[in-house]
Amino acid sequence: MGVVVSFGEKSAGGDIERLVALVREDMSRVNETILSRTGSDVTMIPEVAQHLISSGGKRLRPMLTLATAILNNYEGAGHIKLAASVEFMHTATLLHDDVVDESDLRRGKPSARKVWGNEASVLVGDFLLGQAFKMMVEVGSLPCLDVLSTAAAVIAEGEVMQLAAAKNTATTEDEYLAVIRAKTAALFAAAAEVGPIVSGADETAQKACRSYGLNLGIAFQLIDDALDYGGTAAKLGKNVGDDFREGKITLPLVLAFRRGSDEERAFWRDSIESGANDDTRLLRAIDLLRKHRALEDTVERARHYGAMAKDALALFPPSAMREALDEVVDFCISRAH
Amino acid sequence: MGVVVSFGEKSAGGDIERLVALVREDMSRVNETILSRTGSDVTMIPEVAQHLISSGGKRLRPMLTLATAILNNYEGAGHIKLAASVEFMHTATLLHDDVVDESDLRRGKPSARKVWGNEASVLVGDFLLGQAFKMMVEVGSLPCLDVLSTAAAVIAEGEVMQLAAAKNTATTEDEYLAVIRAKTAALFAAAAEVGPIVSGADETAQKACRSYGLNLGIAFQLIDDALDYGGTAAKLGKNVGDDFREGKITLPLVLAFRRGSDEERAFWRDSIESGANDDTRLLRAIDLLRKHRALEDTVERARHYGAMAKDALALFPPSAMREALDEVVDFCISRAH
Repeated sequence: MGVVVSFGEKSAGGDIERLVALVREDMSRVNETILSRTGSDVTMIPEVAQHLISSGGKRLRPMLTLATAILNNYEGAGHIKLAASVEFMHTATLLHDDVVDESDLRRGKPSARKVWGNEASVLVGDFLLGQAFKMMVEVGSLPCLDVLSTAAAVIAEGEVMQLAAAKNTATTEDEYLAVIRAKTAALFAAAAEVGPIVSGADETAQKACRSYGLNLGIAFQLIDDALDYGGTAAKLGKNVGDDFREGKITLPLVLAFRRGSDEERAFWRDSIESGANDDTRLLRAIDLLRKHRALEDTVERARHYGAMAKDALALFPPSAMREALDEVVDFCISRAH
Repeated sequence: MGVVVSFGEKSAGGDIERLVALVREDMSRVNETILSRTGSDVTMIPEVAQHLISSGGKRLRPMLTLATAILNNYEGAGHIKLAASVEFMHTATLLHDDVVDESDLRRGKPSARKVWGNEASVLVGDFLLGQAFKMMVEVGSLPCLDVLSTAAAVIAEGEVMQLAAAKNTATTEDEYLAVIRAKTAALFAAAAEVGPIVSGADETAQKACRSYGLNLGIAFQLIDDALDYGGTAAKLGKNVGDDFREGKITLPLVLAFRRGSDEERAFWRDSIESGANDDTRLLRAIDLLRKHRALEDTVERARHYGAMAKDALALFPPSAMREALDEVVDFCISRAH
């Protein structure tokens, strides 16, 4: 695939480096915890887990837990295990997603299911989920356990929702939003909420951090969905047009479908339902997205949620951490350029 | 498949009816909880979950939680949600197992993956696991959460272990035992352990109940593995010889392989590795199992663990519940006849 699309505008991108610097020490403890907790005498477990864990994700979600704990002046050590739990939950979801989507690539490397098979992906995912809960229990905060176990159920619910909506080109923007709130934003929200909870912060702080995480998560997924039509395979770590080929309904498609002519809608329906989408069809799809400004407007929608995320944090006094978290929002959105 | 094998001896079977009667009221509350907790606006979730949940399993595991709570004179209501959690964990495992094993039948009905696909089985399993943890959190006992989350990780580890040992005819009895301890007995043990924990019973009672569950679970799995070669499809709810066809290494095979001649070992190796096992091969396999008394001795091994289970409970004063739990052991073993 050599299809490359530029978004037609360049913007003041944010940077994640400030956040990375502020949580560096804690993050290296999280990484140690992750390593030690994927250990097992069953050699396939560390192999599969580390294949994914070491494959260069940004670890944004566990960073949110660390950051929101620090933002709330936490002085204990519980946030380390909570952050590691969050990353394990995320990794488990990725392993199961690859099975569900039958993906062969993940972050530019062969997916675990491609290397070790569906069986190992399902089971190592389950193992990591079990380990995640064990670590949460060790931290001993029932409210944190409540938030994270609820997230686990909601994420799975969102994935099933997505499955049920699959190939339905008449999906509304609201329905699409309900899916990504559940399958993506719920974990961002939970990751950001357990920081203040473990810090013993009040409910206002807790809700603020949750709202930050939730809206950041929505923005993040919107950009991801735009990127699926607009980056290069090398940059994305996956193939351009994967969502299109898999008949996945994302916001760019929802917008282009609604804004299109009858003939265009027939094209979308046909493409999504048949799933036999070659490069010619993908180029036509990208052409239609461009014609209807569907990618730009997806990014605009993301900006809206990004603004909500920033405002959610605005009641915290100015600090390096608050600024860093603001910049993460800009970073997520600027990925689209 | 019309292959039927009798075990050649009839025995004084136990009965599960006494236990069923003693926990009847609590169990109907567990069933209500299960029904209400599989509810979701995403219609596929209750559909898939109830397909499996209503398919006539004996619900032995949640009954163990209720029974060991009653045995320890519990007067609260936490055991209901804990028992429902145990059943959800079990159901999640079944859903994921069917994907791993590519099974088309489960308890005599088409498996969920056959009806709704692998995707739904993976995701609804994840949803149930999330709900299980939510319910545990609602009960609010960190020690119970510890026991059950540890079990979740151990079960997955056991399944991966089984995967790694797959098709290895040189598997020792000890290796096989390590697998079934993890993949099956760990949940029986946890189910029986949270009863005394939620009751506030002392460590001795807790360990006794855990040991009962663990050894009952081992016996249960041994009998299951014998039954795979020895029942009828109708009685079993699955095809006779499934393990053989799938190249699964269970104790009957371990024993027959070790006790066999070079020529017989070649037959086993060839069968397990090729996986192209027709009825003729299955009949030869059953013939060899009979020749080496592999099924009878598997049942004998089960009796050994069953005896340990009963002795574990022997320090509880005699009561209807203790007797009922003893009878469950006999019931599990008598299934083989």
